[in-house]
Amino acid sequence: MKAPQYALLITLCMTVTLGAFAAEDKPLTLASQGSFFVGGEIKKIPAAGPAAAGDMTVNQMYVQYQSPLNADRHLPVVMVHGCCLSSKTWETTPDSRMGWNEYFVRKGRSVYLADQVSRARSGFDPTKINAVRSGSAQPSELPNVLAASHQTAWSVFRFGPSFNVPFPDGQFPVQAIDELYKQMIPDLNSTLPNPNPTWTNMAALAKQLKGAILMGHSESGFFPEQAALIDPAGVKGIISIEMPCQTNLTEAQVSTLAKIPTLIMFGDHLGDVQGGPANWANSFDTCQKFVEQLTKAGGDAVMMHLPKMGIKGNSHMLMQDKNNLQLADLILGWIDDHVESKKKPVRK
Amino acid sequence: MKAPQYALLITLCMTVTLGAFAAEDKPLTLASQGSFFVGGEIKKIPAAGPAAAGDMTVNQMYVQYQSPLNADRHLPVVMVHGCCLSSKTWETTPDSRMGWNEYFVRKGRSVYLADQVSRARSGFDPTKINAVRSGSAQPSELPNVLAASHQTAWSVFRFGPSFNVPFPDGQFPVQAIDELYKQMIPDLNSTLPNPNPTWTNMAALAKQLKGAILMGHSESGFFPEQAALIDPAGVKGIISIEMPCQTNLTEAQVSTLAKIPTLIMFGDHLGDVQGGPANWANSFDTCQKFVEQLTKAGGDAVMMHLPKMGIKGNSHMLMQDKNNLQLADLILGWIDDHVESKKKPVRK
Repeated sequence: MKAPQYALLITLCMTVTLGAFAAEDKPLTLASQGSFFVGGEIKKIPAAGPAAAGDMTVNQMYVQYQSPLNADRHLPVVMVHGCCLSSKTWETTPDSRMGWNEYFVRKGRSVYLADQVSRARSGFDPTKINAVRSGSAQPSELPNVLAASHQTAWSVFRFGPSFNVPFPDGQFPVQAIDELYKQMIPDLNSTLPNPNPTWTNMAALAKQLKGAILMGHSESGFFPEQAALIDPAGVKGIISIEMPCQTNLTEAQVSTLAKIPTLIMFGDHLGDVQGGPANWANSFDTCQKFVEQLTKAGGDAVMMHLPKMGIKGNSHMLMQDKNNLQLADLILGWIDDHVESKKKPVRK
Repeated sequence: MKAPQYALLITLCMTVTLGAFAAEDKPLTLASQGSFFVGGEIKKIPAAGPAAAGDMTVNQMYVQYQSPLNADRHLPVVMVHGCCLSSKTWETTPDSRMGWNEYFVRKGRSVYLADQVSRARSGFDPTKINAVRSGSAQPSELPNVLAASHQTAWSVFRFGPSFNVPFPDGQFPVQAIDELYKQMIPDLNSTLPNPNPTWTNMAALAKQLKGAILMGHSESGFFPEQAALIDPAGVKGIISIEMPCQTNLTEAQVSTLAKIPTLIMFGDHLGDVQGGPANWANSFDTCQKFVEQLTKAGGDAVMMHLPKMGIKGNSHMLMQDKNNLQLADLILGWIDDHVESKKKPVRK
């Protein structure tokens, strides 16, 4: 084949490939993928039983990524899961539909999934458990390992007014709820130092990527803000989904955050579940106030309260809800308009 | 464009795509990817502090998969990591080269990475820890959480004769060893019932896939055999890398395993590290004997002792060694010849 013909073929192939990008049932083409760690420090561990004393690495954060072709057209997106969960949150849903990780890649974004420090593939620091076992520490010093029950999940994740009774308009695929329960794993965040190393590592990752959008959910919902307060250099946008917001930040802290476009998203039925440890209506109020604080400081902060936008029935696990890709499109549109668009300057 | 021209273009595009498959720096095209759980059972948990009593799911196994185009030409491969590690084992190496997971996909295989039950994204059962913390169980009942130190890893993984002294011909990328240390996470296998649910779940996964090749390493090296002894129906091939083999199986058990083509692989310097909890020379001897037992029972069992094949310097973490793709090719060749080839019947 002659060179010009070959060039035409390559162009046509690229068109075919790019045209397939957004369709969920078409092949997915990646420029690259892999995994690595951010952060981590060396800790001396004492001898425990037959094991000799030595060094171990703690507080590292495992990150898994995929990049589409031409990923440099968009900012990378870092997704961090919530309590008692792992990055499984963002992958295929309990009823096996596409998750936000792949959908964002198909929309041309590099996606970085981080397992929180002390969770899943990031590991945790077990020295206190072994110290109590060997008698060198007291049982009261054991970490409070948070193991949320199915009943707690049903209530906190707002699947319905009471256990196993779904909301009639609920978007969560409750027929596959057992698959969500399998995602729930022990949460050892109570073992972590302050500041939480996940915050530090998220800030470092954003910088390492030369700019990224940080997304958090629930327990990690305010982590993007915490990361930016540690080092805002790499944080180009913040997406905070369903959490209590901090409204007691200093003026200097609010000013730092106001330089970063911020999206906050809440689902439906915030006040419709009785009992349980979460108070979503109250969390929503704190975030409304936080948005006002950012706006007053000159920031670009958007609150998407889905039912107010006519999108009904979303649960707390909205990235797994039946309309999850519709919500992803809302977020992608917000990124286009508020973070990446030249028309609307990011820093006012 | 006319239909025949379009058909030609599609053919050419497919050729371009398929031609790129084995090249490590070319885009990767996936037919599908995702994650799910195998197994799991519901356990009642007592109230712990502010948390009410309820149900939790334990013993589930998290599995992440990728399928290339035309994956049905080959059997899927299930990879299970070893002690104190997660599926990160098979992903990009400590020095950021391609891991076996992607390489096998590029060679046309569906790859399933399983986090062992009680590790990483599979979660673990924390009830004993919480019971001791609340005073309803004794410290001696705490699980023995295995946290391997850097020093133990250096010795057990055979990076050199003594800590921080590498073998002159060593294949492990020791300059990136800190990145391996970050992969090492607490091992709670001591909390598991017998039989280990990972074995049961591996057998179930192989069956669910309507036939698969099971691969284990180190702690999980003999798990494919254990899975096949629970249910051989889906286990079409076994790859066991660097572990002690069981040589006290019954005649009926050996007969079951002898129906499945088996590959065992060991690296170099088996007797060249002094001290530490592992005795690789002894493990090798048990596997030699196991191969003899399978062969005597009519089985097709192959021992690849790499230095005997002229491949020198491989560590215990050989899937991360500098020649890791060369070793992957050996395994792929074995699959072709011993599992998938029509010429050499699988069941003698």
